[in-house]
Order: sequence, then structure tokens, then C-alpha cells
Amino acid sequence: MRIAVVGVGAMGNRFGYALSQAGNDVTLVDGWQPNVEAIRQNGLRANLNGEEVQTPLPIYYPSEVNQIEEPVDLIVVFTKSYQLEEYFDQIKPLLTPQTYVLCLMNGMGHENILEKYVDQNLLLIGVTMFTAGLDKPGHAQLFGDGNVEIQNLGPKGETFAKKVVETLSQAKLNAKYSTSARYSIWRKACVNGTLNSLCSLLECNMGELGQTKEAKTYLKDIIAEFAAVAKHENIVLDQDEVFHHIDETFYGNIANHYPSMYQDLVKNHRMTEIDFINGAVWRRGQKYGVPTPECRLLTQLIHSKEQLVGAKLD
Amino acid sequence: MRIAVVGVGAMGNRFGYALSQAGNDVTLVDGWQPNVEAIRQNGLRANLNGEEVQTPLPIYYPSEVNQIEEPVDLIVVFTKSYQLEEYFDQIKPLLTPQTYVLCLMNGMGHENILEKYVDQNLLLIGVTMFTAGLDKPGHAQLFGDGNVEIQNLGPKGETFAKKVVETLSQAKLNAKYSTSARYSIWRKACVNGTLNSLCSLLECNMGELGQTKEAKTYLKDIIAEFAAVAKHENIVLDQDEVFHHIDETFYGNIANHYPSMYQDLVKNHRMTEIDFINGAVWRRGQKYGVPTPECRLLTQLIHSKEQLVGAKLD
Repeated sequence: MRIAVVGVGAMGNRFGYALSQAGNDVTLVDGWQPNVEAIRQNGLRANLNGEEVQTPLPIYYPSEVNQIEEPVDLIVVFTKSYQLEEYFDQIKPLLTPQTYVLCLMNGMGHENILEKYVDQNLLLIGVTMFTAGLDKPGHAQLFGDGNVEIQNLGPKGETFAKKVVETLSQAKLNAKYSTSARYSIWRKACVNGTLNSLCSLLECNMGELGQTKEAKTYLKDIIAEFAAVAKHENIVLDQDEVFHHIDETFYGNIANHYPSMYQDLVKNHRMTEIDFINGAVWRRGQKYGVPTPECRLLTQLIHSKEQLVGAKLD
Repeated sequence: MRIAVVGVGAMGNRFGYALSQAGNDVTLVDGWQPNVEAIRQNGLRANLNGEEVQTPLPIYYPSEVNQIEEPVDLIVVFTKSYQLEEYFDQIKPLLTPQTYVLCLMNGMGHENILEKYVDQNLLLIGVTMFTAGLDKPGHAQLFGDGNVEIQNLGPKGETFAKKVVETLSQAKLNAKYSTSARYSIWRKACVNGTLNSLCSLLECNMGELGQTKEAKTYLKDIIAEFAAVAKHENIVLDQDEVFHHIDETFYGNIANHYPSMYQDLVKNHRMTEIDFINGAVWRRGQKYGVPTPECRLLTQLIHSKEQLVGAKLD
């Protein structure tokens, strides 16, 4: 398959590498200059479960995509949430009536942005449980295993969605076709809306958060806000199951993990994607008349903290 | 007047010194060993507006108050909120049917604890706008000016309350008799429940907080929670006035100030008095059926942070 990976941060690196290794024709698109230059010079590089890997792949700035001669079948999008619109404004030349777009990004509401550029029947949504970290431009840390869940947003996309599932699985990305991708997106946003926001605000890892006496109480309150809003989108979040899943991250090796928002905000002083997580619940709550005071306060406090640390956009 | 100052932290130091300089017979009671030993060795010491002052005063541990031979007329209490009950358990020998207790401590609900030990007609409540900081055991930094507002809790205390007002004023503590001490206590708690909690959580000073774009929105939300609960205690908080007062601390010299809770929690890794500020509003809200999700979340997050920094009790 001819694939463009748009946004070559840590996850774009993982997917770009895996898909090209499996024989797909992969083109990269990214707007961060040090990253683009590093990949042009050294290829796409990563530490993949302890092994240094490297593969040369063509990479373009968003403004250069008109230089890509042959249309792509699929765009896999892994930009920062708040940069999605800006990217799509620039990569319009890539979008044809046969170009599908797959969005596995964390958070909610990306499809609302994408629908402005792409027909609903060309949109594929889902989640991935792979993790990844970018340690320097052009080089990612790719550890552990994961999986991918994909569903077509419009009714006509099913055939192609299943073809993408097959392509990803051949690339060892463990994809499956889903009939409940929206549930999975809500569930994952709920996990991020607790662990990411709270660890970033309190500057701790997941185990440390879980060991504070009060955490389990407010975690349940926040999950309840997600569930109350989700209900208005015909999603019945299993609050006990989500809590149990979060609770499991407080023990064992994963407890030492600092969520990606912590790494963005506290470690690297970058903007967060809070508007697509707790912020999205707050906005939708306003729309449905559901009060979400905890999501609202967390969103606002994270925004204050972004300003206090002088967070940059990239 | 024969006065015992119970709790000789920064504010106890200020009041003990001022009252003894004005000719009152002052005895100190404190439970923190390095503090007691320093005062026994060097007297009560302070930097008072740039001048080093020092005065020898008798000081007892709470467990030693039975050694105080002559009963006191007034106990001025300046313990940590969460230590108040423990202190009063121990200083019972000091309490006679003629011993008044004046509580000017920050926060709400102290009178509920004190009423277990002291007849309502012997209780005086109020607020003070003096500030003070303890820089080492037995030594305080006392800068600027302030005032004191006092009211009797029970109807029979008025005469003595006015006598205490006179005594404090002679000691240059600028006291006045109030008929609305409860309003002032609520108003001050509301200021503390925004500035103290938020600066501690976000680790910033007042000016930095005020300069973040979102702060004014959530400040107003939190003030509204205080007001909604206060209403059930027949206190009509002027939300605009409180907001305006808080907003003024974001500019000029005071903007550089780190609130006392920040100093306790972030700088000195000590327990905070959050349970008597936002926590008190949350508890009372539950009692009156008023939702206070922001006060609840702030209380819980500060408690989590106390545990994360390994906060000590003294």
C-alpha cells in the first residue's frame, strides 16, 4: 500500500518504520525542522526493543507535499492534536477522492476537524495501545508491544478499513477491525483524562499518584464526568472497568511510567493536548447541559501550568 | 492582662512579643521542641521591620501547663489548624470558667473544635491581616502593618471582647470590635481558598497565577462555591468585591508574594491547613446539599501533594 505518515513524532516513527519494513511504500510528512533534517540525513531511526534500527524514507515538509508525485492510498495521521488543522490546511494536495485518512491519535474530536477536509466515508478512526517516545529528532524509543483497533467512520469505508487492518497486521502492528471504536476512544480518553492530567499537575508518575490516599476518590469522580457526557453520545462507559484498568497501572513496572502529558509539559515544557481530553469532555458537557466541573478545572489548571512553564508549541 | 499565647509560630511570636512589650503578663505554650529550646535559651526573637528584637518570656510544652501557677485571663491561640485539638487536649489545666480564648487563625471551623473545650460565652473569634514568617526556631520575620477584628461568639462575651480589643490596640495590634467577624472569616477563607490552594498546586507566586489567562475564570468559579455555601450560614459574600480584592494582589509588590500554604507545602514540605479552608467549604456544602466540586478537588489534590512531597506535621 502507498502510505503517507503525517506527523513523525514518536508514534509516527513507529508506524512509519513498521509499515515500510513490511514492504509498503511509505512517505513521511513533518513540520518540525530538526526532525525533518535528521531523517533526511540519517533516515528514520529508533531503538526498537533494544535494537538500533534505521531506514531511509522520503520526508517532506507539509508545504512540500505537492512534490509527492504519486497519490497515496492512505494517510496515517499522528500530529499533535492542536496542530492537526494547520497540517491539513497544508497537505490538501495529498487528499484525493480515493485517499483514506486513518486517525489513531489520543483524545477526542479529531474527526470533527478531519471532516472539514475529508469525506466521512474516507475517514478511519480508532485507538492504539502501542507507546513510543521521541528522545531526539529523528530517533524514537519503541518498547513493548501493543495493538490497534480500527473502524470506518462512514458506512462506505468498511472494505478499505479491513484492508488497512490487514496491512497493519502484516507490519506486526496487531490490528483488528472494530465495531466499537468510539467506545474505545472514549475509554482511552478517560484513562488519559485522569492519569495524564493528574500526573502532570502533581508532577508524579502513575504509581506515586495511585499511592496517594485521595487519588482513588477523585479518579472515580472524573471517570463519572466522562461517563455522564459519553451517555449523550450513546456510549455507556463501564466506570468500574475503567477504574480497575487505571488502578492496575499503579502497580508493577508500569507504575514507574510518566504519562506523555507529563513528558510534554513538565519535562519538555511543551503544550499539552488537554483540550482534546478533559477539555473535550467539558465542551461536550456544555453542549449537552452536563456539568463537568472537575474536567473544566483540570483543563484550566493545565493551561495555567502551560503558561507558567512557558510551554512551546513544538 | 495575664495572657497565654498557645502556638508560638510566626503569628504567635508577633502577638506574644507585642503584648508583652505593652506590659501584659505573657506566657508562651508550644509543642515544637527546637522552638521551645531556642526561646528558653535566647528569648523570643524577631526581625521587626528591620530591627532585631528579643525578649525573655516563659515558655512551656503543652504537657507542662500544670506548672503555670496563676490562671490566665486570655488564651490567644495560633497553633496549626490540624494541631488545635491535640493542643487543647493537653492544655485543659489552663482552662478555668474565667479563661477566655481568642482564635484569629486562618480558615473555618476552629470554633467547632474549641467549643468542645470552652463555653461559647468564653470564645472570641476574628481575623487578623498581620502577616509573619518563622525563619528559624524562636525567630520570626515581622514586616508591615496589619489589624485585628474581634467578636464574641456567645452573647455574654461582649464586655470582655471589647477589653481584649483595647489590650491589643495598646500593643499596637490595631484591633477593633466587630459585629461581622463571621463575614470576615468567610471572606478571608475565600481569599486563602483561591490564592493559597492554587499557588501551592501550580507552584507560583500570586502575580504569576494572576497572569495566566484562565486564572480569573476559575477564581470566580471557586469564589462562587464559597458564596453558595456561605449563604446557608446567613453570610452573603460579595463575590465581586472578593474577586476585586484577590485581583489586586496580582499587581505591584504583593504580586511577588508566595502564600503561606506554598511556603508550608512546596518550600518546607509541611502539612497544609487545606481542611480548614477549601475542605471546610466542601464539608459544609455536603451538610447543606450544595455541590462544591472545585473545593473538593482542590482539597484532594493538595492532600495528594502533601503525600507526594512527604509533608511533615511540624
